[in-house]
Amino acid sequence: MSKYNCSRRAFLKAMGLVAASAPIAGCAGSPRSSARKKKQPNIVLIFADDMGYGDIGCYGHPTIVTPNIDRMATEGMKLTQFHVASSVCTPSRAGLLTGRLPIRSGLTRVFIPQSPGGIPDDEITIAELLKDAGYATACIGKWHLGSKREHLPLNHGFDYYFGIPYSNDMSPGTQPDNPLFKDQPPTPLIRNFTVTNPDKEPDQRYLTKWYTEEAVAFMKANSGRKPFFLYLAHTMPHVPLFSSETFRGKSMRGLYGDVVEELDWSCGEIMRTLKELGVEDSTLVGFTSDNGPWLGKKLDGGSGGLFYEGKVSTWEGGYRVPAIFRWPGRIPKGVTNPAFATTMDLFTTFAKLGGAETPKDRIIDGGDISPVLFENSSVREARMFYYFGEELWAVRKGPWKIHVKTTSPASVSTWGDWPIEEHDPPLLFHVEHDPSEKHNIADKHPAVVQELLELMKEHQRNLVAGEPQR
Amino acid sequence: MSKYNCSRRAFLKAMGLVAASAPIAGCAGSPRSSARKKKQPNIVLIFADDMGYGDIGCYGHPTIVTPNIDRMATEGMKLTQFHVASSVCTPSRAGLLTGRLPIRSGLTRVFIPQSPGGIPDDEITIAELLKDAGYATACIGKWHLGSKREHLPLNHGFDYYFGIPYSNDMSPGTQPDNPLFKDQPPTPLIRNFTVTNPDKEPDQRYLTKWYTEEAVAFMKANSGRKPFFLYLAHTMPHVPLFSSETFRGKSMRGLYGDVVEELDWSCGEIMRTLKELGVEDSTLVGFTSDNGPWLGKKLDGGSGGLFYEGKVSTWEGGYRVPAIFRWPGRIPKGVTNPAFATTMDLFTTFAKLGGAETPKDRIIDGGDISPVLFENSSVREARMFYYFGEELWAVRKGPWKIHVKTTSPASVSTWGDWPIEEHDPPLLFHVEHDPSEKHNIADKHPAVVQELLELMKEHQRNLVAGEPQR
Repeated sequence: MSKYNCSRRAFLKAMGLVAASAPIAGCAGSPRSSARKKKQPNIVLIFADDMGYGDIGCYGHPTIVTPNIDRMATEGMKLTQFHVASSVCTPSRAGLLTGRLPIRSGLTRVFIPQSPGGIPDDEITIAELLKDAGYATACIGKWHLGSKREHLPLNHGFDYYFGIPYSNDMSPGTQPDNPLFKDQPPTPLIRNFTVTNPDKEPDQRYLTKWYTEEAVAFMKANSGRKPFFLYLAHTMPHVPLFSSETFRGKSMRGLYGDVVEELDWSCGEIMRTLKELGVEDSTLVGFTSDNGPWLGKKLDGGSGGLFYEGKVSTWEGGYRVPAIFRWPGRIPKGVTNPAFATTMDLFTTFAKLGGAETPKDRIIDGGDISPVLFENSSVREARMFYYFGEELWAVRKGPWKIHVKTTSPASVSTWGDWPIEEHDPPLLFHVEHDPSEKHNIADKHPAVVQELLELMKEHQRNLVAGEPQR
Repeated sequence: MSKYNCSRRAFLKAMGLVAASAPIAGCAGSPRSSARKKKQPNIVLIFADDMGYGDIGCYGHPTIVTPNIDRMATEGMKLTQFHVASSVCTPSRAGLLTGRLPIRSGLTRVFIPQSPGGIPDDEITIAELLKDAGYATACIGKWHLGSKREHLPLNHGFDYYFGIPYSNDMSPGTQPDNPLFKDQPPTPLIRNFTVTNPDKEPDQRYLTKWYTEEAVAFMKANSGRKPFFLYLAHTMPHVPLFSSETFRGKSMRGLYGDVVEELDWSCGEIMRTLKELGVEDSTLVGFTSDNGPWLGKKLDGGSGGLFYEGKVSTWEGGYRVPAIFRWPGRIPKGVTNPAFATTMDLFTTFAKLGGAETPKDRIIDGGDISPVLFENSSVREARMFYYFGEELWAVRKGPWKIHVKTTSPASVSTWGDWPIEEHDPPLLFHVEHDPSEKHNIADKHPAVVQELLELMKEHQRNLVAGEPQR
């Protein structure tokens, strides 16, 4: 199977140059999908932007009320040691979609509108795998993996795209005083390849609503025809915060709460649609976030709960996010599972569920978490490399984590102006005993520090870093 | 009705001087209870010691696994703005049992074994009210409201007592180097009035198990005969931590987690017993804690989740605790409710459920939270007075809270050695927008600060403080 052919097909199809239903030789999904169709579940991944571990009811927030997300948890599984691939947007999404540490694809930094880069052509996304396996695929919402035409979702495995290609604060309209954005266009709201609003900012109050409507329409259009993969990557609650009139001023938590409660409504609409379509029992729904809360935004930022710090840091508050998975009949109900897992694992797990082979010619960092999701196993050794841009700052193995550098704290600084501390000897935390990373016990466990330093070095020795995409 | 007669009866009965079943003239419960019996639910209150808001699965702890408590929440209601009456043990329990701010009863400080005081005779406990209304009542576990014979639970409305009368770290065996305890007896494990272990420390590894067995036996003995009120006040997870072999070394969170997971087991046993007895639908079960985590104990202390600070502070981390209520058929299932409530409200609410009148001759600070529990109402104005000993340090009205003094931070100090800061002007937080009390906005809302200062002064002007019990 050639990955390029399949991607090429997506492109041609999006352009209307091939019929949507025409089978393409060489794409694995087409010949095999009919035999598998019955077993291929729909997969819906709802991805919030900058929502912290502590920002929803079932993770303990006292005044943000999220009955729909909470219900996803009581009807499914809540994971409490779920990590993103990076604590900032672009690399986190790269890790999710490729199953690989962002350093491998070179997607290590946050793109701005003028960034020329994107997902390198030789990277394979989960959307490509699932599409090739016969899925209808859609990316609805924030992309942030390249805004040039050749980098948009339709060139990376998605049949359909509707959303904004980068963050919602990267235009002259949203940051009038920032010279970085003064020559940029209004935040583009794109359908497939077409900018729908060339001359003005989109009305961000309706982004959550519009994304939800698009998501519902996509599921309705495909249900019963093909299995579908819906990647619903909300723009909210990234600052600047917007919510529709229906939610504005309603939450006890203020504007941030209004915005999260609208996302909760959106999750409810997704679940309602699945029920209406009669596909609840054949659909895996996941909910998570791209990184921890943007604490520098104060009350407009969220909360990492008991974790220290948030976005742009390599502390757990940056990397640890809520993660809920629901599939009635397959995932046990109302379970809280402390198994270690990452967004990169979703690549491998979704591929397997969809009957697709994961690439064998490269390192895939994600593993298959089916035993966690379907058998409630919590036996899984944690191993995590915490990068800050291209630098490896922290490593976790089992319950142990060392930091050789930290932003301390990241949250009090303006973007890019983080006070950086080096740690020699490294800081050592037992993050299962001490999830808040309060008690450095490096002096008590020198052998553990040494072991983790070795692991770090070994990783770096073997690493083939991708060319930095900017 | 005379409260003294009823207490007197409890005393005489405990002494075997009256028959357990003999009706006592003047006690409200006896003549009226038969008419009400059908409607009187059993009430079980499980009270943890020093467990923080963030220490269980359904409040977001990542590595403490509490399936039974989580199930209580999915089968019932989780409250997220639930407060104790004080952030230390003795006054917190006084507030719970009397429905009044501890300052009113004089129970403002933590008792040590040699403290002569107790609940003053003219205070009325919820146990007395329920007993008079026809309930069988038991206190199992930690008392900490007076260890002299005349102050033990059987003199305050409980038919039965089994437990230790103060904290589990107040003996020469548990604190050999502390001169305060060197002439004290081993931690007494008392049944009714009898010390069961005059010569040696109890084996604290089994306290949770023993308490649970006693609680189960009490429910079995009374179910079908009388409605029962069980106050199961665990000694754990107060430091020093102990768990039985079954749980020791099993939690990912270390010893603290082992101990909490054993408490979770205990909650499961309570629910299992109610089911076996066929009284699930006629029993209200509540679970909460006496105050926030003892952070000074580092990894042996718990976590307040996103709240700042813990025990012995007037920050939310000291006062805000988990609170779950379950009553199948009466309390809606799987609901998270952000209504403001306190342990003092339980006094009033339990009294009403049991068909007892609350005293009219004194200020009762607790209100009836039946609309919260049974109708899922969250409309309830917050009003809270945060005392540190006899001093009023903070006040909340609605979403606003001012601090005029704080321990900053309480958690780094040894007991009694807290660095105290005065705040003039006071600190002001919007604790619904900013539950972590990070963003002091006093300068933006001077009128609110003024209003809360006035409320503080008015409260102090009208206050009749009880004689300090030490």
